[in-house]
Amino acid sequence: MTQLAKIEKMMCPKSIAVVGASRSRSAYSGWMDIFARIVEFGFKGRLYPINPKADEIRGYKAYPNLSSIPERVDLVIIALPPKAVPGVLNECVRTGNQNVHIFAAGFKETGETEGINLQQEIEDIARRGNLRVIGPNSMGLSVPRIKLGCWRGISQDSGSIAFLSQSGGFAEDFQSYAVQLELYFSTIVSYGNALTLDSSDFLKYLANDRNTAIIGLYLEGVTDGRKLLRVVREVNTSKPVIILKAGLSQAGTKAASSHTGSLAGITQFWDAFFAQTRAVRADSLEDMAHVILAMQNLIPPGGNRVAFLGSGGGFGVLAADACNRAGLEIPPIAAETQTVLRSMISDVGSSMKNPIDAFDIFLDNGLLRSFMDVVSSEPYIDILIVSLHLDWIYEVDDKGKRVQEIIAFLADEANRYTHGKPFVVTWRSYRPDPKYMQAAKNFDTKLLISGIPVYRNFAQAASCLAKVEKYYRFKRQKSSIVPGDGKDK
Amino acid sequence: MTQLAKIEKMMCPKSIAVVGASRSRSAYSGWMDIFARIVEFGFKGRLYPINPKADEIRGYKAYPNLSSIPERVDLVIIALPPKAVPGVLNECVRTGNQNVHIFAAGFKETGETEGINLQQEIEDIARRGNLRVIGPNSMGLSVPRIKLGCWRGISQDSGSIAFLSQSGGFAEDFQSYAVQLELYFSTIVSYGNALTLDSSDFLKYLANDRNTAIIGLYLEGVTDGRKLLRVVREVNTSKPVIILKAGLSQAGTKAASSHTGSLAGITQFWDAFFAQTRAVRADSLEDMAHVILAMQNLIPPGGNRVAFLGSGGGFGVLAADACNRAGLEIPPIAAETQTVLRSMISDVGSSMKNPIDAFDIFLDNGLLRSFMDVVSSEPYIDILIVSLHLDWIYEVDDKGKRVQEIIAFLADEANRYTHGKPFVVTWRSYRPDPKYMQAAKNFDTKLLISGIPVYRNFAQAASCLAKVEKYYRFKRQKSSIVPGDGKDK
Repeated sequence: MTQLAKIEKMMCPKSIAVVGASRSRSAYSGWMDIFARIVEFGFKGRLYPINPKADEIRGYKAYPNLSSIPERVDLVIIALPPKAVPGVLNECVRTGNQNVHIFAAGFKETGETEGINLQQEIEDIARRGNLRVIGPNSMGLSVPRIKLGCWRGISQDSGSIAFLSQSGGFAEDFQSYAVQLELYFSTIVSYGNALTLDSSDFLKYLANDRNTAIIGLYLEGVTDGRKLLRVVREVNTSKPVIILKAGLSQAGTKAASSHTGSLAGITQFWDAFFAQTRAVRADSLEDMAHVILAMQNLIPPGGNRVAFLGSGGGFGVLAADACNRAGLEIPPIAAETQTVLRSMISDVGSSMKNPIDAFDIFLDNGLLRSFMDVVSSEPYIDILIVSLHLDWIYEVDDKGKRVQEIIAFLADEANRYTHGKPFVVTWRSYRPDPKYMQAAKNFDTKLLISGIPVYRNFAQAASCLAKVEKYYRFKRQKSSIVPGDGKDK
Repeated sequence: MTQLAKIEKMMCPKSIAVVGASRSRSAYSGWMDIFARIVEFGFKGRLYPINPKADEIRGYKAYPNLSSIPERVDLVIIALPPKAVPGVLNECVRTGNQNVHIFAAGFKETGETEGINLQQEIEDIARRGNLRVIGPNSMGLSVPRIKLGCWRGISQDSGSIAFLSQSGGFAEDFQSYAVQLELYFSTIVSYGNALTLDSSDFLKYLANDRNTAIIGLYLEGVTDGRKLLRVVREVNTSKPVIILKAGLSQAGTKAASSHTGSLAGITQFWDAFFAQTRAVRADSLEDMAHVILAMQNLIPPGGNRVAFLGSGGGFGVLAADACNRAGLEIPPIAAETQTVLRSMISDVGSSMKNPIDAFDIFLDNGLLRSFMDVVSSEPYIDILIVSLHLDWIYEVDDKGKRVQEIIAFLADEANRYTHGKPFVVTWRSYRPDPKYMQAAKNFDTKLLISGIPVYRNFAQAASCLAKVEKYYRFKRQKSSIVPGDGKDK
């Protein structure tokens, strides 16, 4: 069995033993009781709680140690305090259980001699025994498809996004935020101090995982930067890899060292890393989710030229600034097309130049459809942004009927009128009125369920579009290289 | 009477005539019916609707023209289509009504000959007649203190923030957003195409207005850039001037020209402008509000060195990155102080280095108070950021009791334990659960009412703190200059 095949077995385990499974909720790790989480989530495979003081835990027969369970399991989870870890790892080696997740913190990341020595000790055991280790100082593995969930708040729904995170808290928060954007996961790995398995190893697995289409990575540091560069460069040509690199500042580097014992490294290396791998760079948790939202749902744009359909002159100026800042072009609409557009509406305060500022188009779906149709058919336009001022639209009638009509059109029909070009929706709403806020929330939900990327923050939308466009431009360049031509340009 | 005294009269009018006041809601400008808005808002001064076809409008005696009203008013508002404006302006000159707001669009900003000529015509009339004009293409003036409100959604509450906006829509949206941060206004001016009164003129008025402490400005372009530079440089030494300059990109410049007929100008000029005036630069509507929130509520920091009290290692790394990126320092906590802090808590996964990562401190107000007290007393710390993971705190008990306790402490007591140093609060919450969202909203509201700046977005908090700190550093440098020493350094 190859190393990759062995990792595949670990990453989609049919059997799990939890060493340190406890009956009480106040045991080590308290509300982070992993065995309880796994049972609650509904793991479908074979599950063995290991606890010498128990006969049965949460309905499962308990075993005193790894030797006594009836099989070699696909994954051993060690849920014991750090000092108990070396003993269990030795038992793993003895019993041939080579796939291990270590939950505990208290190792290298403490920066103290005791923790550093303890990490060295477990690394020696793991390397000698050929153990594949997730962690330590990590929340571990969650795979909704096989009903494996190791921490609270994981959605039961599966998707095609894989997420690797050096930080457990970040993985937890990211998943919670992402599901609100209707983004679901194939695999989530919180791998902490990366004892023997590092980001590169998980990436190689995910590159071959047919359940995964997009890969996100929260990264503090890496043991072998050149290996990661090589792997990301390769994986990114088939599946987009979106990376949030934390610890780029001096203070951040120090914090990363305290958090996952990582050497976060210097900015110059990471700038070169992104330039060479062409991985997509995320700036924050929210940005990571918003970029993935666009990546998952958008038709690949043919270029970076945006047409903007909105209302409000000041907002148009700011939107144009935001697009340019992000690296998108806003070409002027051709004079004859402007004449066509202007003939359709009556508002004298409008502008047809691009950004198009015409509140009238939001009063009537037929008009909005025509504008989308005409503008997106222009050959110098690659991407359409429709931007709504929900407060103004809500004011058109008393009951928010117009907002509902626009939602229905944008969610169900609009993509038939974009000539195969990608479109995203942005909105703004500032009135401090619960009914406007509720309208906005419905607006988001319905569009997201239909797979239409929707953003409140216009600058965020522009930035995501620019990143996605840049990624597909890179892919086009790669694929236009004649085979045997050697290196990409 | 000086020009400034005349502008003062206009900006706080005791009498207003509205030319084009209409009885029907479907009249020109539809839902933007200014006379209706002014009446609804409850203007306390004398109000004269001018409409030759009406005897009375909304309970006010109507007059056929400006000659027939019993006084020269402090402000004439022209609410008629663009072509009617020259005639009314001539009437203003004849009757000695020299303070005018022109609502209509359809002038220079159209980019078309007709509009450009019409603007030239009204400018000639206004200059010859020494008219002081707000607009055209503008929503005009709102002063909650005297119950003057010209558009929907304005709060009846007064505050000490003045806001100048070339865009009416921006002014409207900004006010709506700001009141949700408990920010209230002395004066809001939407001045559009800036016919005879430009940003500089309003700024000079606001510098002397004792009701105004902070000035925000949304700017697309300016007729006399050097004059504005001179005025902002002067005003900013006594009252902070926060400017959002739109139209800095090529596309944005073109859009600004279509919106308010402005020449938005080149980036280099504006970079020099900010460097020389030391005005605070805002990046978006939300940023403008968040900077003003910090500016209004914070004790001036003595420097840019931040201590960060939070939880979650990954978040700490990102927070450190965000602080450094914004220009704030995160100095390490002294070793002996780390020992003191560590002795207070039991969590082994915590870090006392800065960012401080210690979830325990959010479990007990006494502990949080002690940490704030100890850390803010360190001489190398200027600013304190307390950062809460609301999801985790909410999980501590079933009913969100702990969140309530923390709110009460932070809102009512915490500033007694910061040794006179400014502190802000940030939070995050990602669980898709309405009860968490409600907890977050209560959290915001209670802190804001107590004047504690609170931010969801950590990068936004860091950026605001850095801007406020930079402003006060500039003020300190100014005030340390010996009188008679001439130029500032």
